[in-house]
Amino acid sequence: MSDRTPSATPSTTDLTLEQRAGLGSGADFWTTKEAPGVPSVTMTDGPHGLRKQEGAGDHLGISGSVPATCFPPAACLGQSWDPDLVTRVGAAIADEAQAADVQVVLGPGINLKRSPLGGRNFEYYSEDPHLSGVLGSAWVNGLQSRGVGASLKHFALNNQEADRMRSSSDVDERPLHELYLRGFRRVVEDATPATVMCSYNAVNGVPVRHSRELLTDLLRTEWGFTGAVVSDWGAVGGRVDAVKAGLDLQMPYDGGAGDAEVVAAVNNGDLGEDAVTTAAQRVADLANRLHSSRETAASFDDAAVDAHHDLAREAAASSVVLLSNEEVDGRHLLPIAESGVTGSVAVIGAFADVPRYQGGGSSHVNPTRLTSPLEAIRETWAAPVTYAAGFTTDGSGVNPALLAEAVEDAANADVALVFLGLAAEQESEGFDRTDLALPAEQINLLRAVRAVQERVVVVLAHGGVLDLRQVRKYAGAVVDANLTGQAGGAALADVLSGRVNPSGKLTETIPMRLQDTPAYLDFPGEHGQVRYSEGLHVGYRWYDARELSVAFPFGHGLSYTTFAYDGIFAQPDDDGEGITVIVGVTNTGSRRGREVVQAYVAVPESAVQRVPQALGGFGSVTLDPGERAELEIHIDRRDLEYRDTRTGASVLEPGRYVVAVGASSRDLRGSTEVELEGEVVHVPLTLTSTLAEAMASPVVAQAIGDAMGAVTGGGESGGAGAGDALGVDLAAMMGSVPLERLVGFSSGAVTTDQLQQLLDAANEAH
Amino acid sequence: MSDRTPSATPSTTDLTLEQRAGLGSGADFWTTKEAPGVPSVTMTDGPHGLRKQEGAGDHLGISGSVPATCFPPAACLGQSWDPDLVTRVGAAIADEAQAADVQVVLGPGINLKRSPLGGRNFEYYSEDPHLSGVLGSAWVNGLQSRGVGASLKHFALNNQEADRMRSSSDVDERPLHELYLRGFRRVVEDATPATVMCSYNAVNGVPVRHSRELLTDLLRTEWGFTGAVVSDWGAVGGRVDAVKAGLDLQMPYDGGAGDAEVVAAVNNGDLGEDAVTTAAQRVADLANRLHSSRETAASFDDAAVDAHHDLAREAAASSVVLLSNEEVDGRHLLPIAESGVTGSVAVIGAFADVPRYQGGGSSHVNPTRLTSPLEAIRETWAAPVTYAAGFTTDGSGVNPALLAEAVEDAANADVALVFLGLAAEQESEGFDRTDLALPAEQINLLRAVRAVQERVVVVLAHGGVLDLRQVRKYAGAVVDANLTGQAGGAALADVLSGRVNPSGKLTETIPMRLQDTPAYLDFPGEHGQVRYSEGLHVGYRWYDARELSVAFPFGHGLSYTTFAYDGIFAQPDDDGEGITVIVGVTNTGSRRGREVVQAYVAVPESAVQRVPQALGGFGSVTLDPGERAELEIHIDRRDLEYRDTRTGASVLEPGRYVVAVGASSRDLRGSTEVELEGEVVHVPLTLTSTLAEAMASPVVAQAIGDAMGAVTGGGESGGAGAGDALGVDLAAMMGSVPLERLVGFSSGAVTTDQLQQLLDAANEAH
Repeated sequence: MSDRTPSATPSTTDLTLEQRAGLGSGADFWTTKEAPGVPSVTMTDGPHGLRKQEGAGDHLGISGSVPATCFPPAACLGQSWDPDLVTRVGAAIADEAQAADVQVVLGPGINLKRSPLGGRNFEYYSEDPHLSGVLGSAWVNGLQSRGVGASLKHFALNNQEADRMRSSSDVDERPLHELYLRGFRRVVEDATPATVMCSYNAVNGVPVRHSRELLTDLLRTEWGFTGAVVSDWGAVGGRVDAVKAGLDLQMPYDGGAGDAEVVAAVNNGDLGEDAVTTAAQRVADLANRLHSSRETAASFDDAAVDAHHDLAREAAASSVVLLSNEEVDGRHLLPIAESGVTGSVAVIGAFADVPRYQGGGSSHVNPTRLTSPLEAIRETWAAPVTYAAGFTTDGSGVNPALLAEAVEDAANADVALVFLGLAAEQESEGFDRTDLALPAEQINLLRAVRAVQERVVVVLAHGGVLDLRQVRKYAGAVVDANLTGQAGGAALADVLSGRVNPSGKLTETIPMRLQDTPAYLDFPGEHGQVRYSEGLHVGYRWYDARELSVAFPFGHGLSYTTFAYDGIFAQPDDDGEGITVIVGVTNTGSRRGREVVQAYVAVPESAVQRVPQALGGFGSVTLDPGERAELEIHIDRRDLEYRDTRTGASVLEPGRYVVAVGASSRDLRGSTEVELEGEVVHVPLTLTSTLAEAMASPVVAQAIGDAMGAVTGGGESGGAGAGDALGVDLAAMMGSVPLERLVGFSSGAVTTDQLQQLLDAANEAH
Repeated sequence: MSDRTPSATPSTTDLTLEQRAGLGSGADFWTTKEAPGVPSVTMTDGPHGLRKQEGAGDHLGISGSVPATCFPPAACLGQSWDPDLVTRVGAAIADEAQAADVQVVLGPGINLKRSPLGGRNFEYYSEDPHLSGVLGSAWVNGLQSRGVGASLKHFALNNQEADRMRSSSDVDERPLHELYLRGFRRVVEDATPATVMCSYNAVNGVPVRHSRELLTDLLRTEWGFTGAVVSDWGAVGGRVDAVKAGLDLQMPYDGGAGDAEVVAAVNNGDLGEDAVTTAAQRVADLANRLHSSRETAASFDDAAVDAHHDLAREAAASSVVLLSNEEVDGRHLLPIAESGVTGSVAVIGAFADVPRYQGGGSSHVNPTRLTSPLEAIRETWAAPVTYAAGFTTDGSGVNPALLAEAVEDAANADVALVFLGLAAEQESEGFDRTDLALPAEQINLLRAVRAVQERVVVVLAHGGVLDLRQVRKYAGAVVDANLTGQAGGAALADVLSGRVNPSGKLTETIPMRLQDTPAYLDFPGEHGQVRYSEGLHVGYRWYDARELSVAFPFGHGLSYTTFAYDGIFAQPDDDGEGITVIVGVTNTGSRRGREVVQAYVAVPESAVQRVPQALGGFGSVTLDPGERAELEIHIDRRDLEYRDTRTGASVLEPGRYVVAVGASSRDLRGSTEVELEGEVVHVPLTLTSTLAEAMASPVVAQAIGDAMGAVTGGGESGGAGAGDALGVDLAAMMGSVPLERLVGFSSGAVTTDQLQQLLDAANEAH
């Protein structure tokens, strides 16, 4: 929150039980209840802009909303890899919220993109938890710097739309902590969001609303969260169990049923009154704190509308990713102004005229204004600009007349700018996609255009990852616009023309085929169970571990200039808990540009399974041609840890950490390494420890050796060569035998007591 | 068992508790205890031959064993796809057991090959449960037809050696039943093995020895097993819990500790005496039944030794797989006799002289005799045969002198036969492999040979799958000998020369790379947990589902002749529980040959996840050139079922089943389809059913529609176009809402009672 001093919050212990229970649920769809000393809080949807409903609202929150700036959704904005920009967007949204008298904006969404098919992926930042956590923190810090509360969502493992209100995300302990919770932990620790939103789904069979492990043990006890936990809208059934688990606020209004359940449960002894008081106090604290930071005079005036539209344009231009940019006649296709094109430009594709710029569902913003790429391009170019839709977005297939018109335009122009993408109906909250394909009529159009025009630039509008094999084949340059928000038209004209030098990088791998994706065989699960079978290997972790070719790797993005890296250096922090990396970057091209530099970490000698590399940190630098700067990237202990399944601890392993620095996860420009002291996990030896584990202890090795003598006996099979008759290395075979079995194998010559004494001695000596 | 009438078994209720407890553990390493009316039973290792220890045995069962015929291990023998052959091998092993006064032979091993790295894969048949179950049944039927008991092992999910005595195989319900248990069920139901061996490991956290679900509920109650459950040697800790779960016999002798635990537990009331009596009775029944079928006059005389060696040769020759066979100068490289080669033959590679023919560990047989490929080839060819080792098998890398000698031989010969493979030390019980590579010095040799000799035939000796990318590149023909048993030398000469026309087919996919294998990222697990993350997609099911290229597909194997398929026809069985497939096969080549024909099933419109295709049945036919025959293949209900996770039932789904028939899983020659009536799973609607699920019921669709009207209210947002403001299909978004949430969403306008009445009506109407 901001650094204003909140007004003193009265204690809710003076309230009646009914009043306290009542603070735990909404007054209507969007607001909390008032109580003596507790004002009502208004919340609205919208991580990429405000969705405040017009009028009094309705039961489902689906009526129209007041105009607000539609910034690029997270999937696009994240491609900026620019926390400062994300902070500015968060602050701008807060200003609009203040003007609309909204105290909580329901965002950011930082769930990992487990599968590219996830229906809400456009609302999320990345397949990587570090990037998601850093950008989510930036957004919260921006929003809350203006006195508006965030709601970090959807906590947790809400990675699909299919059966989202019931299905269980069944995940093993290490990916749970090292991937799915890691970003949430970072935002809680680094940005103290006012609220955390508990998701619809279950995790390992327990509905999140009923998971004390998630809502209390991890969120509050381990991570130190002190705000309020609010339910996703309609997530709560079984309110009493939810209160026990640590849910503070059930949304929306449910007719009073949940409050009555709580009161009854306290009265019959099933629920401790303290739990109700604690939850009520958290809601009261939230309400008072946010009311103390209200800006009642704030307004969203025309100047602010303009300024926010400009910010939306800047954000979009900074987030667009230039995927490829081939040369024709010795010049890159982009920017157009430098490509040798002097004549007419053929703009082709329905999305140029009717832009696709956000996804459907609760995050859907009613924009203050909207620029189409076509308009912006016409404003930008002096040369003639033609337009042909080329296809329809209604799913009716190839339209021969539109196709012919587009091909003719393409043939007569110097360059074809082809705007392809997914229609709004193909991507939305509420359902998942089933493939990665662009509509066949669009590919058909592209192929036909390419047949008559050498210079083909494709601009893609979509929220989720696409199969780009055909696009790569027919387009010399590909601009991945993602969903650019309301100012995307102008932003794209900026990038295509060269007014803006693109610097966005992919936050999600573009695989070759859906069949290559990690969750392909168990997304979205069946009968309410979703096995997160890829374990630690989400996104690039999978493609790297399986050594799969990808269309474009995580972190990839081109510029109109080029950068060279030098002098990569890393050292442990003074406290030994992190790594500082320093790298020199030089702009080796001919225009000013920004480079996003990524640092990946590997732990080659790890005692546990590790992914080949994981993003540990990143930074960016903007350089003039010929300019060199040194960039410092800090890698946090939290991104180096693994979760030890034997002890339940997050462990910084001792040993060698290799840090590679580069322009993408597969364009590494150099590496270095550091030794970290870390902490050794000590797992005491027990009777179920194996012979091999015990032999690692020098204290018992001798004694165990004697015991082995007894086991193999004095008979003909004992001693050297005992395994020859089996054609086997006997030591290897016996190494996996638990110590306690030696009692039986020795027919009692070795006793349990003897073994235990040895183990005690070994554990003592540790 | 055989159809002899067993002698009457006395009741063990006359025995003391101590005697009954004592029948539940071994008298020593290999025998059970005697008791009044109960003889001792002798057991020995060895699914591919008898490993009866010499002398009195030792504590660990590792001393030398008496000579016995070493038949091809299961990994090789299975490649015959010939149940009759496997039955004959089982019977021959039983004859040797009778001569050695052995009552139980510890086999067959039918675990699925989950990963090609599994250290004991050479002891198992296949990656497919149908094939494993059919061949396992054939072996049991052969063995038990001669009055010797089998021990079906390792039950269950013992798919790796790493930490095998502790690790938990964590597997979901459907792969558990549809893959890992399916073969065991078939052998129990079709061949009634005398014993089942419980494995070392745990399944989903419960040690198999303590799993009542596996040892009693499934094995006995569902599948009807009536024999004795014996522990793998040393598997039992916690004998009392094991008896409770359904373990009858703990092996080996443990000094009496386990028996004492059982007696104490009965005396203190922790264990019901009935459980001890039941276990003792099963051991007593087993002992008496097997003693009644002893052949005390049996001997393993020289004639039998010869006959069994000949059977081992036939088995090996029938199991060798011809992977590839290119043409040089218009003639196939193999068979040599027809390849145009008239001059000298260069035999190269240490494995030609010192054959690798079985794996290490408990199955290791002391063979009655041993023929090397080199000897057999020298006996076969009239032309000169040279030999050069080319490399050593001691891991010392390239040996320049051996290499030079081999290259010179190759250059001077008309053809090079290069024997490559893995050394015995590289594959054994007790540890898993860590890669699929042939030693680099062997690849180096092969490349050098190929540089001087156009005709290169590679013969491979190995128990587990190899990466063959380099071999395919340099060898014109590849003969996959696997581990051929003691007569493999002669069998290979038979195949290479053309005396035997190969007909073996792969029982395991040969992938391109280890990185492509299904369990690559979680084999062998960590800290005692192994996530079976590939789920239903083991072996070809994975490569098919992910559409991955493979080196050689499951079921692949060439012949020296060719076959055409025609007239594929399928129809449901009269009882609707299975499918009968009829296919015409014609020998279109110029030599007599045997074709293994495979039938794969797909269920394209299944209501649940299905693999792209699964082996449903197979058969074989031997034809003269030009001859045609019709082959009938029966597909059993058990290979069509899926396990419904909602009801716990094995379900034959109603609908369309597509049956494809071919020469391998990726060489399908045609397909047809049948409709099966099956059984519909009825899952009653409840308050947690979703709106979409409920709407499928015509009875409630109308009523729910009315309720929806109440939910969306009479306000401006209700009615048509309600989702427009969200840019979303509202019906799709609401479809996943559980019915019970409608109470809250409607603020109580819809009540729980109303909903329940509707659901009752809907369930009633079903």
